[in-house]
Amino acid sequence: MISGRTTLLAHLGYPTESFKAPMIYNPWFERQGIDAVVVPMGVGAEDYPTFLPLLFRLSNIRGALVTMPHKTTTVALLDEISLAVKIAGSCNAILRRDDGSLYGDMFDGEGFTRGAKRKGFAFADTDCLVVGAGGVGSAIAASIAAQRPRSLAIFDTRRDVADGLVARLRRYYPDLAVEIRSNDPAGCHLVVNATPLGMRPDDPLPFDPRRLDRQAFVGEVVLSSEMTPLLQAAAARGCRYQIGTDMLFEQIPAYIEFFGYGVTTPEELREAARIAY
Amino acid sequence: MISGRTTLLAHLGYPTESFKAPMIYNPWFERQGIDAVVVPMGVGAEDYPTFLPLLFRLSNIRGALVTMPHKTTTVALLDEISLAVKIAGSCNAILRRDDGSLYGDMFDGEGFTRGAKRKGFAFADTDCLVVGAGGVGSAIAASIAAQRPRSLAIFDTRRDVADGLVARLRRYYPDLAVEIRSNDPAGCHLVVNATPLGMRPDDPLPFDPRRLDRQAFVGEVVLSSEMTPLLQAAAARGCRYQIGTDMLFEQIPAYIEFFGYGVTTPEELREAARIAY
Repeated sequence: MISGRTTLLAHLGYPTESFKAPMIYNPWFERQGIDAVVVPMGVGAEDYPTFLPLLFRLSNIRGALVTMPHKTTTVALLDEISLAVKIAGSCNAILRRDDGSLYGDMFDGEGFTRGAKRKGFAFADTDCLVVGAGGVGSAIAASIAAQRPRSLAIFDTRRDVADGLVARLRRYYPDLAVEIRSNDPAGCHLVVNATPLGMRPDDPLPFDPRRLDRQAFVGEVVLSSEMTPLLQAAAARGCRYQIGTDMLFEQIPAYIEFFGYGVTTPEELREAARIAY
Repeated sequence: MISGRTTLLAHLGYPTESFKAPMIYNPWFERQGIDAVVVPMGVGAEDYPTFLPLLFRLSNIRGALVTMPHKTTTVALLDEISLAVKIAGSCNAILRRDDGSLYGDMFDGEGFTRGAKRKGFAFADTDCLVVGAGGVGSAIAASIAAQRPRSLAIFDTRRDVADGLVARLRRYYPDLAVEIRSNDPAGCHLVVNATPLGMRPDDPLPFDPRRLDRQAFVGEVVLSSEMTPLLQAAAARGCRYQIGTDMLFEQIPAYIEFFGYGVTTPEELREAARIAY
């Protein structure tokens, strides 16, 4: 129940109609007895840079979840940003610290690595390949780098985009073996599709699943269906895999810790949401 | 349950801790199946003039409830204002109309007159006296004027303040008998204390209740106790009366109509709030 003592967490994006976060966070807050509420706010791109600093001058706000189209714009509006934000070039979480300063983090990649680890994938001594070096690919690459695998390879059809990500990874993880490579997944322990390929029925596959090691773990960012053609092929090959929505659900506990509301799991969140509906 | 399709109503003021509106409106919205939510936002006076226009550029906001310290500042920030706002010089309700323009109204006085009418007071052919011509006194005087009594008298220890209110009333209600008078309630059918006198135990009475007609209706704006010393004296004298909080509760249906969510009563609102807690 919202009162004058309730802490606000803004959910910033446009349009808001498809937002899911309020229906996941709020039932969990209520069940935990946490007096906080996620409030969707539809902000146009042209207003965002002026609105954001004023929003965070409200006396009863603690943070924000940031989504399309503001993830990149947010980076320059904060006082301090995490390593993940620096590498990804985008930010999806803002915390107002006690001194009023704004700190930004990025959990798209964190959601991916949390999910992979929960499914039993151990990053130590592995060779990882991220196919697609755009926003979400950069975020996933940053989180994989933080897990200290043996190597991390990047592929993008746009060579300059791949070069940029590799340069950022090397700058912040100078001891990690980071390289450009082809989209051939042979020999890789972890392969991630971070391209939009798979959203449309006639899309080509982002890489050749016949070249996957059968022990490989395959990650997917496409959300349009649970089992994309790529995941179907990987599963048929006997590979472990992670669907796109798992990456989303797995990052919610990271947000909740970031906002200072304790530790939870995707299962606990799903259960609270299920009871509320 | 808040979703990305929920309409926001901002509750703007500072500080927010004592806000009651969310706990009254939100249970009623839920019970009525109206997908709207009142969200407290603690805005400092220095931020308000820049924050308000940006807030109303959100795609999912419909209106705002405005409280201290922003009621006066709001007037100049809107595209159009009601007669009550023009006379009161303050605004506590903002509606964003379909064309995006902002319309302001003021319901403090409306709450007072709605309550008096519900308690059986008929304004036609009455002589009314408002003691105190500040913000709330001006709002009450504006709403009384709209009820077309026979006459409306204003008293304030600050003569210029009383003169200002009388001038505004005469401008917008040229056919109404409006005058400055003393705080002697003798002969008046309706007498309102719109001063802060009664908030502290050692306050003098705002007017002499021994001079009240026994048929008079006495209104009070002081909220610190239900039966202020003035109301105790009026009740002992046999007068009908209205407590301060009734004025607050009676204006909520006015707000709800203003926002376009239908017609309700204070009793229905109280019942929904009671069930929610």
